[in-house]
Amino acid sequence: MSFKGEHILSVKQFDRDKIQQVFDIARSMEPYAKRQKRTTVLEGAILGNLFFEPSTRTRVSFGCAFNLLGGEVRETTGMQSSALSKGESLFDTARVISSYSDVIAMRHPQAGSVAEFAEGSRVPVLNGGDGANEHPTQALLDLFTIEKELAASEQPIDGMHIAMIGDLKFGRTVHSLSKLLALYKNIQFTLIAPNELAMPDDIVSLIENAGHRVTITDQLAGNLNADIVYQTRIQEERFPSQEEANKYRGKFRLNQDIYTKHCKSNTVIMHPLPRDSRIEANELDNDLNLNPNLAIFRQADNGVLVRMALFALTLGVEQLVSKYEREVPWFSNK
Amino acid sequence: MSFKGEHILSVKQFDRDKIQQVFDIARSMEPYAKRQKRTTVLEGAILGNLFFEPSTRTRVSFGCAFNLLGGEVRETTGMQSSALSKGESLFDTARVISSYSDVIAMRHPQAGSVAEFAEGSRVPVLNGGDGANEHPTQALLDLFTIEKELAASEQPIDGMHIAMIGDLKFGRTVHSLSKLLALYKNIQFTLIAPNELAMPDDIVSLIENAGHRVTITDQLAGNLNADIVYQTRIQEERFPSQEEANKYRGKFRLNQDIYTKHCKSNTVIMHPLPRDSRIEANELDNDLNLNPNLAIFRQADNGVLVRMALFALTLGVEQLVSKYEREVPWFSNK
Amino acid sequence: MSFKGEHILSVKQFDRDKIQQVFDIARSMEPYAKRQKRTTVLEGAILGNLFFEPSTRTRVSFGCAFNLLGGEVRETTGMQSSALSKGESLFDTARVISSYSDVIAMRHPQAGSVAEFAEGSRVPVLNGGDGANEHPTQALLDLFTIEKELAASEQPIDGMHIAMIGDLKFGRTVHSLSKLLALYKNIQFTLIAPNELAMPDDIVSLIENAGHRVTITDQLAGNLNADIVYQTRIQEERFPSQEEANKYRGKFRLNQDIYTKHCKSNTVIMHPLPRDSRIEANELDNDLNLNPNLAIFRQADNGVLVRMALFALTLGVEQLVSKYEREVPWFSNK
Repeated sequence: MSFKGEHILSVKQFDRDKIQQVFDIARSMEPYAKRQKRTTVLEGAILGNLFFEPSTRTRVSFGCAFNLLGGEVRETTGMQSSALSKGESLFDTARVISSYSDVIAMRHPQAGSVAEFAEGSRVPVLNGGDGANEHPTQALLDLFTIEKELAASEQPIDGMHIAMIGDLKFGRTVHSLSKLLALYKNIQFTLIAPNELAMPDDIVSLIENAGHRVTITDQLAGNLNADIVYQTRIQEERFPSQEEANKYRGKFRLNQDIYTKHCKSNTVIMHPLPRDSRIEANELDNDLNLNPNLAIFRQADNGVLVRMALFALTLGVEQLVSKYEREVPWFSNK
Repeated sequence: MSFKGEHILSVKQFDRDKIQQVFDIARSMEPYAKRQKRTTVLEGAILGNLFFEPSTRTRVSFGCAFNLLGGEVRETTGMQSSALSKGESLFDTARVISSYSDVIAMRHPQAGSVAEFAEGSRVPVLNGGDGANEHPTQALLDLFTIEKELAASEQPIDGMHIAMIGDLKFGRTVHSLSKLLALYKNIQFTLIAPNELAMPDDIVSLIENAGHRVTITDQLAGNLNADIVYQTRIQEERFPSQEEANKYRGKFRLNQDIYTKHCKSNTVIMHPLPRDSRIEANELDNDLNLNPNLAIFRQADNGVLVRMALFALTLGVEQLVSKYEREVPWFSNK
Repeated sequence: MSFKGEHILSVKQFDRDKIQQVFDIARSMEPYAKRQKRTTVLEGAILGNLFFEPSTRTRVSFGCAFNLLGGEVRETTGMQSSALSKGESLFDTARVISSYSDVIAMRHPQAGSVAEFAEGSRVPVLNGGDGANEHPTQALLDLFTIEKELAASEQPIDGMHIAMIGDLKFGRTVHSLSKLLALYKNIQFTLIAPNELAMPDDIVSLIENAGHRVTITDQLAGNLNADIVYQTRIQEERFPSQEEANKYRGKFRLNQDIYTKHCKSNTVIMHPLPRDSRIEANELDNDLNLNPNLAIFRQADNGVLVRMALFALTLGVEQLVSKYEREVPWFSNK
């Protein structure tokens, strides 16, 4: 099965085999990301890193992933400076920019825009988030993190228990992750959200139809003894009224005290980041920073590995990475 | 004749010999731009890519051209963050930034600013557009495209017929292209524009004095049987009144139907891009996308070649490009 | 003494030995910055160049310094696009971005923010300016320039005479430079400023307690026969009233005429740049541009050397730079 020349637009493109292929390559990228080895397999290749909607974290992650394979990055941030604002079609923009690049990573505020862009592109396009629609590399890095964290206790994804907390209605990441998890077997989903922000019915059906167990609740207590707790942020403006928001305020926060009381001793804590550290909103308290099961920064690390893998695969060099190794003197062994 | 150390500020610097020198080098860049070969001739060199006025297309084209020669790119976009907004002179900015760079590409909204900057610069400066004044690399890539497209039918530029359409009054690209074409022999110019947006007299005189034939008209029909049709965009706010604009609305649009009726079977269609794809303004219909004579995206491709050539020439490495070839594994043969 | 893995946050970290170590390495960087030699010692290393507050000059200087050592640069400009604006803590941002980078240069409008960021970072952080607080690489490049300029007349820093002019109250650069100079011996400081903008008492005490001589005045005339004249910009809005500003308007300007009358024949003129070239404010007249003792652009050049040195030192490769030399064809011998 080859990814060469393919666009990566949606989690729907993936089955378990394709996921494992990405994850196998992602794991093989670790020595390069950790600066234990250096590869120049993509020397001279150019990534068009098009962030029509800003996102420092995702943009820099794509850019670094490409640099770590030896390639160069040409970047565009924001929309006002772009010809799109002068009425140029996504097709034309894609046609032109893809003639400058060997692969493109793109974020755009409008759902469906990245797929439309990809139709005009002469090189593979990786969706870095298209509005409320998809953010497939985030879903893959989340799943990759789950697999890696569970592997520490020799547990597979099949049969695991995941609790998702917070805004499950508008949270793009929990939707995409659920779709990927549905491909596995016998998972227990505990979906913890205020009623107004509950997981959409179509996602719940999709999970249930795939044979998984689903518990829906608006209570943290008693529902956190999962293998994975995936926390998200609740924005109070999502509620129909401030009264409704007040009713739930603070009910979905996680801190070390709650962790000790309600989680298993090795429950892994995940979050798509950024987490809001302002006091009135902290869905994930800083006192968890010393908890070794807080995996949120390992998620970010894994994002680089997954993106390196997708670049290598779509450019067809995944088997050549180690052939182009080179010794460099500054290794920091991060 | 050497370009080494020269600034590229205006089409006025070029005669036919210098143009051919640029085009010869540009043609030799094709295998590198097409990813059939890799060169590192400019390894370690730094391009200062200064876009004080945003232009994604031109900025990325310069940047990629430099990367394709093996160099690095340091970029600045917008003006508010720059010391220019704190009263620094263009001379000082040039003095400082040129100490960081080996060559500079610069766009700035103010006519004459790039030449003023160049006086303070210690390295070659390439004008990427200075307001209403000049955009010489666009004119060169347009001319290079014409030469290449005509060469397919073994026709030289001398003796050809070009129709320019649209806003010929404010269109910087048609002015500069006309000045370059005036250096050739026996060209038929058909200038199709609303009276309010006709080609300025000084350009018409310059063409006529150089011995070319000029037809001025405000009608498309009967005037499109040219070798090259160069379409531009008309902005309705250019007209003295909305009534005047309404009078001409849609009269200068080109689509496949009009092409079939009025153009030659191999008339080449050009446009400086971006074209406006919003319905009320589409000067070049999307139904032309399948027409093999639509050269607008080949223009963008050629832009990279011309800019690679200008970098190689101004840095004096045009004869060394192939000496620094290197094999890379990811060639996509775009 | 090793800098490897250290953050560079404040001039307070430096004693004379550490300063000399930086300057020795900075001097050894000159052939690379002058494009007489090329090194790839940092090939594949990634600089996270985080300018949450814009500063073209400093940002590009850091970026070029890193490129000249062979490394790659991933850049972020402005704050609105960053997760910081969504309530993310500096700790979290640092944790994530430092996982993508091998070293970070950071500017941020808030005093203390860079040190706070450094606590979350897994790689060395270089302070590129944190509000009114510190800008240590500017102070080091200023001191490096002084040492180099005086060396031309075989004079050491010990025993020299420096006149500082202008806004000595709010000028971050003169404060930091004074702290570094205080480490040397027997310096004559002449502090020339309007009373409202005089050097703060704590800095004056620090200098005096270190055994240096201080003269405080609001008169240029008679006070410029120094080895170094360090000019800064006065912003009129700093005065309590426009009347007060009018009283001093123009009194602290320097031009060739004043230089000839009041300076020594080899007094070196410095300025942190940008200088304001608008007529009403020009603290340093353009007629000084031909004066060979105007060192302001050499300061900018030296900034690259000092930043190269700090990157090499914090990444622990300062002894390996020449081992990774490589021949390149485009040397311009700037």
